[in-house]
Amino acid sequence: MSDEKLRFELSEYRTRLEKARSAMERAGIDVLVVTDPANMGWLTGYEGNSFYVPQCVVVSKDKDPLWFGRGQDANGCRRTAYIGEDRIRWYEDHYVQSDTLHPMTVLGQFLTDEGHGSAIIGLEKDSYYFSPAGFEALTAALPNARFKNAMRMINWERIVKSPREIEYMRGAGKIVEAMYERITEVLRPEVKQSDIIAEISYVGTRGVGDYWGDYPSAVPNLGAGADASAPHLTWTDKPIRANESIFFELAGVHKRYHCPLSRSYYLGKPSQQMLDAEKAVLEGMSAGLEKAVVGNYCEDIALAYGNALAKYGLKKASRAGYSIGMGYPPAWGENSASFRDGDKTELRPGMTFHFMSGLWYDDWGIEITESFLITEGEVEFLSNVPRKLLVIE
Amino acid sequence: MSDEKLRFELSEYRTRLEKARSAMERAGIDVLVVTDPANMGWLTGYEGNSFYVPQCVVVSKDKDPLWFGRGQDANGCRRTAYIGEDRIRWYEDHYVQSDTLHPMTVLGQFLTDEGHGSAIIGLEKDSYYFSPAGFEALTAALPNARFKNAMRMINWERIVKSPREIEYMRGAGKIVEAMYERITEVLRPEVKQSDIIAEISYVGTRGVGDYWGDYPSAVPNLGAGADASAPHLTWTDKPIRANESIFFELAGVHKRYHCPLSRSYYLGKPSQQMLDAEKAVLEGMSAGLEKAVVGNYCEDIALAYGNALAKYGLKKASRAGYSIGMGYPPAWGENSASFRDGDKTELRPGMTFHFMSGLWYDDWGIEITESFLITEGEVEFLSNVPRKLLVIE
Repeated sequence: MSDEKLRFELSEYRTRLEKARSAMERAGIDVLVVTDPANMGWLTGYEGNSFYVPQCVVVSKDKDPLWFGRGQDANGCRRTAYIGEDRIRWYEDHYVQSDTLHPMTVLGQFLTDEGHGSAIIGLEKDSYYFSPAGFEALTAALPNARFKNAMRMINWERIVKSPREIEYMRGAGKIVEAMYERITEVLRPEVKQSDIIAEISYVGTRGVGDYWGDYPSAVPNLGAGADASAPHLTWTDKPIRANESIFFELAGVHKRYHCPLSRSYYLGKPSQQMLDAEKAVLEGMSAGLEKAVVGNYCEDIALAYGNALAKYGLKKASRAGYSIGMGYPPAWGENSASFRDGDKTELRPGMTFHFMSGLWYDDWGIEITESFLITEGEVEFLSNVPRKLLVIE
Repeated sequence: MSDEKLRFELSEYRTRLEKARSAMERAGIDVLVVTDPANMGWLTGYEGNSFYVPQCVVVSKDKDPLWFGRGQDANGCRRTAYIGEDRIRWYEDHYVQSDTLHPMTVLGQFLTDEGHGSAIIGLEKDSYYFSPAGFEALTAALPNARFKNAMRMINWERIVKSPREIEYMRGAGKIVEAMYERITEVLRPEVKQSDIIAEISYVGTRGVGDYWGDYPSAVPNLGAGADASAPHLTWTDKPIRANESIFFELAGVHKRYHCPLSRSYYLGKPSQQMLDAEKAVLEGMSAGLEKAVVGNYCEDIALAYGNALAKYGLKKASRAGYSIGMGYPPAWGENSASFRDGDKTELRPGMTFHFMSGLWYDDWGIEITESFLITEGEVEFLSNVPRKLLVIE
């Protein structure tokens, strides 16, 4: 395919491939089977809504990456990835959702043909879209190979962003700003939740300027009133109510790169509970952000946040953030570093995180978050939405 | 939780549970670990955007279903499922995306506590969101249990729809009609693909009347010009072009129930190739639909379609349809019956299918499809969108 269709320079894909090969060498792996769609896309440019059937990219020491997927998706590979015709392999359609056949058996044969029958093969054993049945079919088809768990290997290589990746994420940040501007315009008592989400989706998909809106890896979460106790509910047609809080967790997205952001709104005069929580969260975020400097650990941000909350008698039971970037359903987190006790990931320039400072209790919750870039100096916020409980009188 | 929040009568969930137990008994399974989000929701009502971390519903012979998930998602269970407080179990947050711990180890302990340590346990070994690492953690935690593959067991139980499910799907059908009406209004040369998708998402999320729009398990696919050769591409900001075809594959969705539908458009005077393909597809669909009667097999529809195409020198390499209903990302197919050679699933009233009659070749494609309900008589189409190549002059 032509270079112009790729979302990054070919040289960037080559750099990524070398990073992957170095990681493989450190882990003593000859061949890596990459099943996570974001890892596949990051390595090759492959893009498509095809991850509901088995597919992968195979990285070896000296050959170009090999794409493997369903026959009908080979054209998608030709049209989105830098992979040449000789490196595309597919399985016939009767392997799809069969009780007796599995596509990973076919991959085993292709790997044998490539000379990898006795190789040490790395598998993403805890990635999305690689099942126990797929694992069994692949290992059975390669009786002389040895297998190592390479889960999160490529995810970790993705953690420092290139200038082009950062540009896409800044674009995503502009989109999420526009989404919140729209929410502020339309969020009123009696409006249906689904109508609010329709507005959010509209703005998010149109995008801002040249930054067209791609689909988020996870649809908007929201929680109104007591439903704000649950972080992962989606919408219904329930009307927005006065004198109630509601949070949104959304992402602006450009070319699969995400800028997540959450805000809680209050329609009316906020309750003292919400005002107290706002104060604690904002103070905690400031404390955490102070620690978001090169050389510190991810856990430092979580600990600072937790300590500030503790002064107010609040506690966050879940991790306070995670690495972000390229993503496919079901999640926009990169599945590598987290802001939590024990995470000694050293902060480096070019890392990007969602400071997921949301709090959920038995019958209420609050979400005010930020996504940011680690720089040599202070963090750069990827979007600019007022960091506070947003009140609609 | 209160009955009124459930999307189905409690009695319907009880009926589903009994179906699951019968299937387990036929398969010689004592305990079933259900990890597919649609299967979880169908059994218990559990609903949420939380499937990016391990979670499941456990069905046993005599106890109420047990929900197992991340601590922060327990409130979502309380607010959406009929599961009582005593049947909710969770894991602590440090198990999330850990290199050393896996939530399925915790599930093993809970299953032991339930008295299932030596049981015959069914696992969905090829479902979404159950990984090889999860499988290994669970089996290691239950050294005295025996494991059987129960993949697709619950999917097959979902295949005949209840009157309430059919009502939701008819609502989804009205939504997809509205989406295509909007496309017909806005699809014009020079409009950006992303702006068209924004309109589709807006209409799809607002819904029609009381049928509010839920999110589709897969975002819209589209293919314009030569990109129509690839079935699973999504949008960019590329402008719509005159004298080119473009297909859309979308679903209207209400309360997680889908009505998928595809149409190809042509902007300008259609090429002879497209007109010929339209004729072949429509003739093939009529032939297939004639076979969509109670007592026939799923393969009969595929064979009739294929035979009709063959007269025009065309061939469909992929399955020609699949069972539809409730779904979560990444796919709205139910992962049970398919329209393809060898599928001897007998058609019964209440089954619902997407007749996925799309064709993709090296540098072009066409998609004109229908979703329908099997009845005692002729099929009932779930939506009413003109079944033809839609031409915009």
